[in-house]
Amino acid sequence: MRAVIPFKKSNAKSRLSALLSGKEREEFATAMLNDVAEALLNSGCFKVIDLLTTSIIEVKGLNTVLTEKGLNEALNEYLGKMSSHSINEPVLIIMADIPLASVKNIRDIVISPADIVIAPGRMGGTNVLFIRDPSSFHVDYYGASFLKHREIASGNGLKYEVFDSFNLSTDIDEVADLTEILLHGKGHSARYLKKLGFTIAESGNGGRVGLKREYNRLELSQKR
Amino acid sequence: MRAVIPFKKSNAKSRLSALLSGKEREEFATAMLNDVAEALLNSGCFKVIDLLTTSIIEVKGLNTVLTEKGLNEALNEYLGKMSSHSINEPVLIIMADIPLASVKNIRDIVISPADIVIAPGRMGGTNVLFIRDPSSFHVDYYGASFLKHREIASGNGLKYEVFDSFNLSTDIDEVADLTEILLHGKGHSARYLKKLGFTIAESGNGGRVGLKREYNRLELSQKR
Repeated sequence: MRAVIPFKKSNAKSRLSALLSGKEREEFATAMLNDVAEALLNSGCFKVIDLLTTSIIEVKGLNTVLTEKGLNEALNEYLGKMSSHSINEPVLIIMADIPLASVKNIRDIVISPADIVIAPGRMGGTNVLFIRDPSSFHVDYYGASFLKHREIASGNGLKYEVFDSFNLSTDIDEVADLTEILLHGKGHSARYLKKLGFTIAESGNGGRVGLKREYNRLELSQKR
Repeated sequence: MRAVIPFKKSNAKSRLSALLSGKEREEFATAMLNDVAEALLNSGCFKVIDLLTTSIIEVKGLNTVLTEKGLNEALNEYLGKMSSHSINEPVLIIMADIPLASVKNIRDIVISPADIVIAPGRMGGTNVLFIRDPSSFHVDYYGASFLKHREIASGNGLKYEVFDSFNLSTDIDEVADLTEILLHGKGHSARYLKKLGFTIAESGNGGRVGLKREYNRLELSQKR
């Protein structure tokens, strides 16, 4: 069984640029990647974990595979190569920006009896996709990819399971999403945000909470 | 074992008022309540399901309990009454605005060996709270209630479990949240939104999806 994590380091997480500098966004994206990689490694489920990346990056325990292609093309080429090399073993595709992913989540997915397991992201995304037979499936990310992946499975006569997980649904794209890491995270990305001075803030409107950032003296003098 | 659903019909879901009229918001809130009630009823786990409500409303299979109090006060009074009447059986408190809640979710929660089970909402909320011994716990909703409920459990020497569910984390407060019902819902609230003309819209920015509303001729003539 294999896992593959698509990753893009350069100009990562641009929607966080109101709060994080370019360097911080790269470091934060790498911290999230490390959280995902640890969940996969500690699950003990995978013979090979590939990191499909547009720029050179080394993560302990992961096999770096460079690509210049976009997400769909790169992943479909990856699935196609597995089929053509007769290494048609199950593949778990997992996004690099779901740092709440747990070892239990990964183990629960791969023991599913379904042909395809889809863990949805919020607003129609696909955050984890487990494909038992890569020769029988192709991916179609962006937009309502959750619906598209369900259709591809049904169209190919495959049984799919929708995996119900808050952890896996929580992809980190926007400023508000950082709050979820502060609330629930215990890994690299939570530590990184805390190191930068982020804490949870009660919004005061009686509803949901937010976050705030406190700069230390050194950082403030650097910002001036 | 009991379940209790707090409910407020009047001026329900005010943050949806850009898209739904007052009457529609009330009907929609009632549709979501029916989805939650069905999950509880079909789970077969509960001897009594109480609807703790500020206005008279009848839902088949539910026992209406009128209250004029706010959420925390009403629920803590409810828990206190159970203790004082020596009906100190386990209680599941579930919010009325999580229409994706499934029978499996409910069954999985009540078989937990923990003293307290918390299913978090997004941004620090608490959407389901299972309390094995009501005499040993009190609720504190609003703000980061997830953190507060964890602290109350720990402070009282109780073991808690955080229940990982996208379904249960999806409380419907804002316009964007309606998309999740259209994507994943199969019950009353999904049918209600579809009846009103809501469908999923590809946002076109390559990212997440949105929703749109199509009015039929009759509705348009009424709007004029």
